Amino acid sequence: MTETGRLETFSDGVFAIAITLLVLGIGVPEPDEPLVAALVDQWPAFLAYVVSFLTIGIMWINHHQLFTLIGRSNTTFALIHVVFLMFIAFLPYSTDVMAERLGSGVDEVAAMLLYGGTTVAIAVMYNVIWLYAAGGGGRLLRSGIDEEIRRAGARGYQYGPIGYLLITLLAFVNPLISLAGFAAYAVYWALPVSGPASPSEG
Amino acid sequence: MTETGRLETFSDGVFAIAITLLVLGIGVPEPDEPLVAALVDQWPAFLAYVVSFLTIGIMWINHHQLFTLIGRSNTTFALIHVVFLMFIAFLPYSTDVMAERLGSGVDEVAAMLLYGGTTVAIAVMYNVIWLYAAGGGGRLLRSGIDEEIRRAGARGYQYGPIGYLLITLLAFVNPLISLAGFAAYAVYWALPVSGPASPSEG
Amino acid sequence: MTETGRLETFSDGVFAIAITLLVLGIGVPEPDEPLVAALVDQWPAFLAYVVSFLTIGIMWINHHQLFTLIGRSNTTFALIHVVFLMFIAFLPYSTDVMAERLGSGVDEVAAMLLYGGTTVAIAVMYNVIWLYAAGGGGRLLRSGIDEEIRRAGARGYQYGPIGYLLITLLAFVNPLISLAGFAAYAVYWALPVSGPASPSEG
Amino acid sequence: MTETGRLETFSDGVFAIAITLLVLGIGVPEPDEPLVAALVDQWPAFLAYVVSFLTIGIMWINHHQLFTLIGRSNTTFALIHVVFLMFIAFLPYSTDVMAERLGSGVDEVAAMLLYGGTTVAIAVMYNVIWLYAAGGGGRLLRSGIDEEIRRAGARGYQYGPIGYLLITLLAFVNPLISLAGFAAYAVYWALPVSGPASPSEG
Repeated sequence: MTETGRLETFSDGVFAIAITLLVLGIGVPEPDEPLVAALVDQWPAFLAYVVSFLTIGIMWINHHQLFTLIGRSNTTFALIHVVFLMFIAFLPYSTDVMAERLGSGVDEVAAMLLYGGTTVAIAVMYNVIWLYAAGGGGRLLRSGIDEEIRRAGARGYQYGPIGYLLITLLAFVNPLISLAGFAAYAVYWALPVSGPASPSEG
Repeated sequence: MTETGRLETFSDGVFAIAITLLVLGIGVPEPDEPLVAALVDQWPAFLAYVVSFLTIGIMWINHHQLFTLIGRSNTTFALIHVVFLMFIAFLPYSTDVMAERLGSGVDEVAAMLLYGGTTVAIAVMYNVIWLYAAGGGGRLLRSGIDEEIRRAGARGYQYGPIGYLLITLLAFVNPLISLAGFAAYAVYWALPVSGPASPSEG
Repeated sequence: MTETGRLETFSDGVFAIAITLLVLGIGVPEPDEPLVAALVDQWPAFLAYVVSFLTIGIMWINHHQLFTLIGRSNTTFALIHVVFLMFIAFLPYSTDVMAERLGSGVDEVAAMLLYGGTTVAIAVMYNVIWLYAAGGGGRLLRSGIDEEIRRAGARGYQYGPIGYLLITLLAFVNPLISLAGFAAYAVYWALPVSGPASPSEG
Repeated sequence: MTETGRLETFSDGVFAIAITLLVLGIGVPEPDEPLVAALVDQWPAFLAYVVSFLTIGIMWINHHQLFTLIGRSNTTFALIHVVFLMFIAFLPYSTDVMAERLGSGVDEVAAMLLYGGTTVAIAVMYNVIWLYAAGGGGRLLRSGIDEEIRRAGARGYQYGPIGYLLITLLAFVNPLISLAGFAAYAVYWALPVSGPASPSEG
């Protein structure tokens, strides 16, 4: 049983690196290409950058809020976290694959499913983290977290995988609509009444 | 409502990564090229490295000073921060594009506008951050920050976008003069009487 | 003699960056390749990503536990740490080499030995760290760590190099079995009764 | 006037990223090359990795020790730090250029001078940092640092640029001897009686 300080620092580090690496996915136009046309041609890379930055940003905020409720850690919890971070750190890859295909006509839907699937996996991991921390009578929760908040938390995280799955499946209608869905989810989430995904403010 | 500790750590991480990634934009000469000539040929990349390092450095210092005034956070504020960091993390890309074009004669001005535009967007975001934090009767300010300092802060951040915009527009005269302007702004800013951009010392 | 705070922060940084850089080793398929087939073709890169992420993750957890026992630092200890981190930061390279060779039929075993050799070197460094910190009558240990825990610690770290060496040598049977061994070690290690490698919970 | 906490965190971040990026400079052999021969062929890259990792590591330790004496910061000091970090973040580039030339017979000496010149610039910056912090009657020093320690500090940092310059100039004898000099300096520096470069233990 240890405090969560270093787990948070380490997670912040992975979040910060993953979110900053996103920019490496946008290709620098060759020096002899007309610049504006080259940048416009790359619209999927810019769009993917914005949506993924917001998505990882929200996940970081969510993680931050989680630790207003969780106050302790142990080896098993740390390893669950490593698996969680494995999916976070994978998002720059999913983003690059998706950006490369968007508007190309070659397996766009599959690329969007890879992208969305990564977000679903992350949302599932939030549930695993929560269930482990709140399980066993709240084994890793801070003291003074009452039953009400716990249940709100569990409910909130349960919506995550379903929400991300539905947004992902919009790829079958149109990959761009799915991508817009991820952006919309970010904006919705930031509204003052931020809904089920933020138990710490419930 | 939470403390700002993790928001600062996360922001510091993104700043540190973005500033360190700048070096990846300087190409390593091929092993059979005469070294000195190859390095001299790359002067725009070195110049861009220095100016962008100073620029991101100043933005980090400014962010640091901001949090001597801001003491609390919430979901909306965290998301505003994510958007702010999205532009910070974009600077290495703008820098690479600008360095590639500088002195090449192909769309130099456009590249400089992309670069300067990124700095203007960041300066605008400082205003959004400040207006949200100081709004609603100082909703996120530390206690004991008086009206005087608040007004000085607001005024200071208002100058930012105008200053960066003017420096950016110098690109129409000559992209190198614009770049020199960004460097000069950094030096000016560091003078003991550092002027309007640093409300915390006002 | 100083506190260990910054040594832990610096180490956390290197761990977080090394673990997040792993994803750069997975190639993004060309835009005109059929996506699913291209991703399936890259199975060694995905497998290597998962195993290395878990392996670095466990090493981070182990490092974290170590510092529940170690409370002070000095110049020599910091330099030992730099050497330790040199091997940690090398793992993304070993991983890339291994992933490139796995299933290729060209020097697969040698690549697995490079990978496993890196983990053995890291396990050896844990012993050096421990022996230096616990030596000289526990020169860098926190006060109140009794003889029992010290001996358990020493014993635990002694198993590390042997364990990683045996898993590495499985490469001579089959590189994939060796890789599975690293994954299995991670899972085993996370079980609540986590065995000799975690002295802090002994 | 602010505390140095965030300046240290930011610096630690840049140090950690720069040191971990070093590994990206070692090329992954093509999948069809015989592995052992390809790795042996790359000996300059491995050697450069080890020497630069130790060198940046020592610089980090030195920075850490500096802040056992310095307890406050201001805008000018933060900007001096940005310039200092600009050279730290440049070391992975100097390392790549040097590794590419070592043993190639094309401008090896010039590459070693670029590398050594970067370390000299860093050593000079340590003096600037120290002179600014200790100047003005110890304007940024922690209270209770007596005259003795201050003078030892000043003396210690003065040796730095000379030492690195001499090691750099060994490149004119032989670049490998110069590189060995950087490695030897690291080992010497870590000896318990660590000499002039570590005023905090004087």
